[in-house]
Amino acid sequence: MPETISTIISPEGSLEVLSQHEVNRLRDTSRAGLHDLLRCCALAVLNCGNVTDDGRAVMETYHDFDIEVLQQDRGIRLKLTNAPIDAFVDGKMIRGIRELLSSVLRDIVYVYNEIQTQQRFDLSTGEGTTNAVFHILRKAGALKPGRDPGLVVCWGGHSISREEYEYTKDVGYHIGLRDMDICTGCGPGAMKGPMKGANVAHAKQRRSLGRYLGISEPGIIAAESPNPIVNELVIMPDIEKRLEAFVRVGHGIIVFPGGVGTAEEILYLLGILLHPENRDMPYPVIFTGPASAADYFKRIDEFLAYTLGEEARARYKIIIDDPAGVARAMRDGISDVADFRRQQQDAFYYNWRLNIARDFQAPFEATHEAMAGLALHHQQPTHELAANLRRAFSGIVAGNVKEPGIRAIEAHGPFTLHAEPELMRHLDALLTSFVAQGRMKLPGTAYVPCYQLA
Amino acid sequence: MPETISTIISPEGSLEVLSQHEVNRLRDTSRAGLHDLLRCCALAVLNCGNVTDDGRAVMETYHDFDIEVLQQDRGIRLKLTNAPIDAFVDGKMIRGIRELLSSVLRDIVYVYNEIQTQQRFDLSTGEGTTNAVFHILRKAGALKPGRDPGLVVCWGGHSISREEYEYTKDVGYHIGLRDMDICTGCGPGAMKGPMKGANVAHAKQRRSLGRYLGISEPGIIAAESPNPIVNELVIMPDIEKRLEAFVRVGHGIIVFPGGVGTAEEILYLLGILLHPENRDMPYPVIFTGPASAADYFKRIDEFLAYTLGEEARARYKIIIDDPAGVARAMRDGISDVADFRRQQQDAFYYNWRLNIARDFQAPFEATHEAMAGLALHHQQPTHELAANLRRAFSGIVAGNVKEPGIRAIEAHGPFTLHAEPELMRHLDALLTSFVAQGRMKLPGTAYVPCYQLA
Amino acid sequence: MPETISTIISPEGSLEVLSQHEVNRLRDTSRAGLHDLLRCCALAVLNCGNVTDDGRAVMETYHDFDIEVLQQDRGIRLKLTNAPIDAFVDGKMIRGIRELLSSVLRDIVYVYNEIQTQQRFDLSTGEGTTNAVFHILRKAGALKPGRDPGLVVCWGGHSISREEYEYTKDVGYHIGLRDMDICTGCGPGAMKGPMKGANVAHAKQRRSLGRYLGISEPGIIAAESPNPIVNELVIMPDIEKRLEAFVRVGHGIIVFPGGVGTAEEILYLLGILLHPENRDMPYPVIFTGPASAADYFKRIDEFLAYTLGEEARARYKIIIDDPAGVARAMRDGISDVADFRRQQQDAFYYNWRLNIARDFQAPFEATHEAMAGLALHHQQPTHELAANLRRAFSGIVAGNVKEPGIRAIEAHGPFTLHAEPELMRHLDALLTSFVAQGRMKLPGTAYVPCYQLA
Amino acid sequence: MPETISTIISPEGSLEVLSQHEVNRLRDTSRAGLHDLLRCCALAVLNCGNVTDDGRAVMETYHDFDIEVLQQDRGIRLKLTNAPIDAFVDGKMIRGIRELLSSVLRDIVYVYNEIQTQQRFDLSTGEGTTNAVFHILRKAGALKPGRDPGLVVCWGGHSISREEYEYTKDVGYHIGLRDMDICTGCGPGAMKGPMKGANVAHAKQRRSLGRYLGISEPGIIAAESPNPIVNELVIMPDIEKRLEAFVRVGHGIIVFPGGVGTAEEILYLLGILLHPENRDMPYPVIFTGPASAADYFKRIDEFLAYTLGEEARARYKIIIDDPAGVARAMRDGISDVADFRRQQQDAFYYNWRLNIARDFQAPFEATHEAMAGLALHHQQPTHELAANLRRAFSGIVAGNVKEPGIRAIEAHGPFTLHAEPELMRHLDALLTSFVAQGRMKLPGTAYVPCYQLA
Repeated sequence: MPETISTIISPEGSLEVLSQHEVNRLRDTSRAGLHDLLRCCALAVLNCGNVTDDGRAVMETYHDFDIEVLQQDRGIRLKLTNAPIDAFVDGKMIRGIRELLSSVLRDIVYVYNEIQTQQRFDLSTGEGTTNAVFHILRKAGALKPGRDPGLVVCWGGHSISREEYEYTKDVGYHIGLRDMDICTGCGPGAMKGPMKGANVAHAKQRRSLGRYLGISEPGIIAAESPNPIVNELVIMPDIEKRLEAFVRVGHGIIVFPGGVGTAEEILYLLGILLHPENRDMPYPVIFTGPASAADYFKRIDEFLAYTLGEEARARYKIIIDDPAGVARAMRDGISDVADFRRQQQDAFYYNWRLNIARDFQAPFEATHEAMAGLALHHQQPTHELAANLRRAFSGIVAGNVKEPGIRAIEAHGPFTLHAEPELMRHLDALLTSFVAQGRMKLPGTAYVPCYQLA
Repeated sequence: MPETISTIISPEGSLEVLSQHEVNRLRDTSRAGLHDLLRCCALAVLNCGNVTDDGRAVMETYHDFDIEVLQQDRGIRLKLTNAPIDAFVDGKMIRGIRELLSSVLRDIVYVYNEIQTQQRFDLSTGEGTTNAVFHILRKAGALKPGRDPGLVVCWGGHSISREEYEYTKDVGYHIGLRDMDICTGCGPGAMKGPMKGANVAHAKQRRSLGRYLGISEPGIIAAESPNPIVNELVIMPDIEKRLEAFVRVGHGIIVFPGGVGTAEEILYLLGILLHPENRDMPYPVIFTGPASAADYFKRIDEFLAYTLGEEARARYKIIIDDPAGVARAMRDGISDVADFRRQQQDAFYYNWRLNIARDFQAPFEATHEAMAGLALHHQQPTHELAANLRRAFSGIVAGNVKEPGIRAIEAHGPFTLHAEPELMRHLDALLTSFVAQGRMKLPGTAYVPCYQLA
Repeated sequence: MPETISTIISPEGSLEVLSQHEVNRLRDTSRAGLHDLLRCCALAVLNCGNVTDDGRAVMETYHDFDIEVLQQDRGIRLKLTNAPIDAFVDGKMIRGIRELLSSVLRDIVYVYNEIQTQQRFDLSTGEGTTNAVFHILRKAGALKPGRDPGLVVCWGGHSISREEYEYTKDVGYHIGLRDMDICTGCGPGAMKGPMKGANVAHAKQRRSLGRYLGISEPGIIAAESPNPIVNELVIMPDIEKRLEAFVRVGHGIIVFPGGVGTAEEILYLLGILLHPENRDMPYPVIFTGPASAADYFKRIDEFLAYTLGEEARARYKIIIDDPAGVARAMRDGISDVADFRRQQQDAFYYNWRLNIARDFQAPFEATHEAMAGLALHHQQPTHELAANLRRAFSGIVAGNVKEPGIRAIEAHGPFTLHAEPELMRHLDALLTSFVAQGRMKLPGTAYVPCYQLA
Repeated sequence: MPETISTIISPEGSLEVLSQHEVNRLRDTSRAGLHDLLRCCALAVLNCGNVTDDGRAVMETYHDFDIEVLQQDRGIRLKLTNAPIDAFVDGKMIRGIRELLSSVLRDIVYVYNEIQTQQRFDLSTGEGTTNAVFHILRKAGALKPGRDPGLVVCWGGHSISREEYEYTKDVGYHIGLRDMDICTGCGPGAMKGPMKGANVAHAKQRRSLGRYLGISEPGIIAAESPNPIVNELVIMPDIEKRLEAFVRVGHGIIVFPGGVGTAEEILYLLGILLHPENRDMPYPVIFTGPASAADYFKRIDEFLAYTLGEEARARYKIIIDDPAGVARAMRDGISDVADFRRQQQDAFYYNWRLNIARDFQAPFEATHEAMAGLALHHQQPTHELAANLRRAFSGIVAGNVKEPGIRAIEAHGPFTLHAEPELMRHLDALLTSFVAQGRMKLPGTAYVPCYQLA
């Protein structure tokens, strides 16, 4: 039995001035449909100092944890039952955790309410979706006017090797030394290392307002608690809006080694940057890792060269084993971003101008039919091929590791992909290399492909 | 020809982070229906350093002034044509004026849009109205959590004598010395004096975050420019919401001498405080003026004693010629307010608990029929009599000085009031004393009553 | 009998961290020799809100006022007996006054102790004197690194006409609108007006860190209380060091109309600026007043033209009846100062480079012998003639109004000045014009010159 | 050949407003006698991010490093030749390092000058010494009025085991969670761990003004660079003043495991606390370490019990393997300190009241004669025995590891100590246990005692 505390606390930083109506709605919503979601996310945040990242195990350990929103004229209180004791010091909740808990409440209950129930935004259109992403981020205070561009998004695997983890810290350190901030997806590994490194660098540079922005989503936060350094937390409703948030608030992106999911993210990003309307927009993208990760990026690079061509390769740099070099290149790249935004009179805090095709906003559900229908050939614009490749990738991921995908494969056999033979060979080679590097989350020891060539 | 400047400026402090959609709506709205209103209010603010308070004269002087909202990806700009030169220093707009201008734009265009077009609030109900008032004030940043109660609302005439004006400054000074803030209706006279006095006192007490909150409305701001000390400006949609804003954000009210309008405000306030549900709520109200104003308050006191009785008299103090005493009494009264709110766990920044009967929220239109139908007798609850008296008063004001009222009287003769004879005598005596004191804004030299006893 | 308060207070802002030794010395010194001085200056500060400026009357009214420094391990406390009640609000001293009181204690007791008893500086040399002035100002926190040049020194009479006073406010207002700060000698008239005006302008420009620096001296502060706006107060040991402080911390000087003392100050300033080593140093000097003061400056200009020539005239501008023009010219002039300092890598906060000849640092005692020995002719470098003229002027002031001077004249007859006849005529004409303008503080109605031509 | 940079930088945070005289003195002093010292300390600071702690190796690696103070009217600049490149980012020095470098310059050159050349303090007396320590700390800005007590001094070895190091981090973390700050002697091991832990905790508690105060001395800083977290650095002239600084600014002391030097520090501390005048003064002292360090403290506890008795044991707590417990006990102990200071009206920022006997202020030089003359018996007040034991200990340390001591032993054989036989046995047992635990810095493999019983 873990030690727990039951107490009532005030939210901090996000929910101070509410109308009676808002308080009512907040309480009602948290009691009704969203209660399970809120409970699960709150527990993730309360558990954020702990080492385990197994969301299910956490839920089991604290199976009698509960959270309730109490209404008081003066505002709201949160009633916690059997909360993990490590979130408290001598019975008082740690302030940073109280802030993150308020962020959870704000985003899960309040914003969802606004966006989903009131339908203020037409989420079936690109404009409506982009607008919704904007409002969630603004509500969270994540859009800060008056700051120069310098928010670096870091992507990469959450279960990387110790060597790779230390490398991400080192890159974060050099990013921080150059007065840039970090945005990641919360959680451990490549999401935590850059923040830790930047935090030390900011202390050395006496940068007291460093940002460590975590952008999560309900389906992931439970398993990947925000690490303790995160000082701004936003929970987007789903993975697509989360990705859109990354690319619109970030001024540059660093990709560390990861699994097949990271490769999928790369396709998402390149697919957008290859859109003709984004062609002249500067957007620094750097793939980097220690020497031992050189092969990982070499294979990805080869795959991209074949599928998307030189235009795609011109969009990223690969820098191996040179943290300071990565930071310098990012600084230079962001300088160009700043110049471009000034010239266009664009905002620094949100990249309105970036054209994200509807393909990338709408979720892709990996069914046998959808997979079989994907157009995987060069007889289409490059950015459309990128979108279809991302879908194929997404489906393979699902077939490998996600519950519904695995079950579909079990029932109907492997997905059949119709693709140009040469393209299929490249895809196969890439995935094989991931297996060899131990980057595939495998059900058994031998990797059985979940797809076949038509 | 006055000297003017044509230029493009950025808003300040209120409208930094807007979505593209909001910018569009802002521009469209300002171009269409609200353009005249915006132009008139903007001019009032730009003219705020000047001495004249004749709104019409200002509009004539700057008849070719114009304002336009320009859209830019990065936000909005305001294009000003032929703006008064005194709002600028060497071609650059004074920062405080730029802030007030942004407040005007925010409230006139943006909030109106939200409340009127989108109909987010049901303004036909008390709850919806109170909620709308809350949202406008919150949008304006006027609801500040974390501050102890200390916002003193000052009411009174805008064209008072020099002696009375100096007295309002003196009271403001002593209020400011005791770390309290000032809220008034903007404009000159009793609205400006307390702010000037408090400003000097705050400087002596090194109180750098003193609040000088002006709450205005579109129909008045053009004639009564916010004085230069106002550092927070909110424009409420109409007089009723403006009054509700005063009594819900203020922690105490000081009434200085004024005309018949001030007397009407007193009836509004007492009508609310006499509501049975507000009976136990502390709310300090002080009537004060220099020795020469003693008679003014004596007459009002007598009238209130007869009409509303001792319960009403217990709700206010009359303090003559003692600025420090006024400030001390207000400090003590607000202490009780703070205790009460803490006990009830009410917010400090908005008085949700105050029950404002629908009678006081709905505007009263002074027609012959409505006036004749008023129940002016003691056979009803005191707070209802107060509401009816306020309406009678409001009608008399209209009949005396407001365009529609004057025209109605011209067409149909004086209003006929059905009242208890004794009550009518008291009303007559009060108005007569106002005439004698030169506090009635008279069309001619001799005062011809616009009402008669049935 | 005035109302008074006896209490014990903590100092504020200047004397928080003292060693036990320093506390002892502070207490002993304040008990011994400096007690009268401390008592007199403290009373001036405590009386600062009051209207009278008659130092003697204040001392008589509060003849039983006393101040004592108490020692406590944790620091010091000030025991006040029978202090003016207006310095308190409900028994608690106004914070700004507490700060000024701490400044008085710091400068009178502590700094004097350091400079006079310990003899850390050789005051018989220019370097030692300049160093002492620097240390007093630094101790007072008046040297602020990191601020751009913009401190405007305002000189002029303390008993000027209402029209001239309003003009000084207007100039201060336009100075403040342009983000410049004010430094004066404390007290009323031309010392208070610019601060009041700048304070309003700073509020409009939302400039929260505006400086209102008062530089006084023990002999004057008792009669000329710091006005309530002063937020930094320094008490220099004597008039010469006070003048040196003005010219070394200020970045430009505005001279308003005043009496014969103001004319003497002008000679002091020009005498320094005419020194060959200061020739290329930009230093904006503006003489200004309303239209009615035009003649005053015309006469001074004529006198300077004859005595010091065109080189001197090139050092100042005369701007009549144009407050905004004065502020613009000062802004431009200070721009040049900033450029110069940057070029020379000089500090912004203290003008080390300005050469102040020993003549201007050493006090001049006006005896018959000294006056008779002054070299008043053109056969010497201009800046030396300026120094001698300043002395002659200083002697005439003394002979007219200062106790020792008046007694010397009564005993030995008028001073005899040996001067070129033409120069003497100009001097006579200037003084005669002052009499005609009512700017001479005369013992009787008819002005009897206290000097004669040899 | 290490990569280096030659550049000119401005100091930061400590030396902005200097008089010309001070600048001259600074430059001259840094050129003359103190140049070697300055160079060595500056290099330590510039090297602070690096892993090695071998001062001599650092000096050899950067043998051509140099530092020079340049004079400019506007202040000073530092000219660095061949400085370690890691102190810079893209050619610009890291801000925190620039601050530490300024602290070095301030303390080494400026303060020393003041104290040693000008002889403002009589260092032969306790009062003068304590006063000098106060002035150095005040000059460094380390005495902060207005903060509640909460500065925890951490002592312990600099080359401890990984397990013990992690434990010091853990204790620092729990200290930081409870809003307390850390003061150590700079350098690695037990001096760095608590700061790192507290830094993470402060981030979680959003405590932006956490203090990480390093107090070093010239003889040690070169070998023990301030770790990167130190945000306040003070360099005291010698070990005795450094120890006095620790016990007067700290509000409680935690002792982690260390070598024989740590044991000596414990004797220093207890010797002071056992002084009759300090008997009633609360001063929390906690010995703590992981389970593996239990024996270390058990032996020390036994030795103290025998030599200094129960009174000494009442002065400290031993808490094994309970970081949160240590922090809670410290919080409670400091609460008592705060109450005591308030009651006595003592300052929070400097413990004036603590009586430090002259014995503990004057350095002890370990000669054969001095060692032979030590009175090591129970026929004296306990605190005097503590002083003599500390000296004996100090001598043994010198005989073991310090150059002069080792040479003296080589020349004249082991020190002869005259002591009670039982006491000598206890001392022998203690040292033997240190050897067994591997805590003695041994010249060879077998430990040859450098002392013998008379």
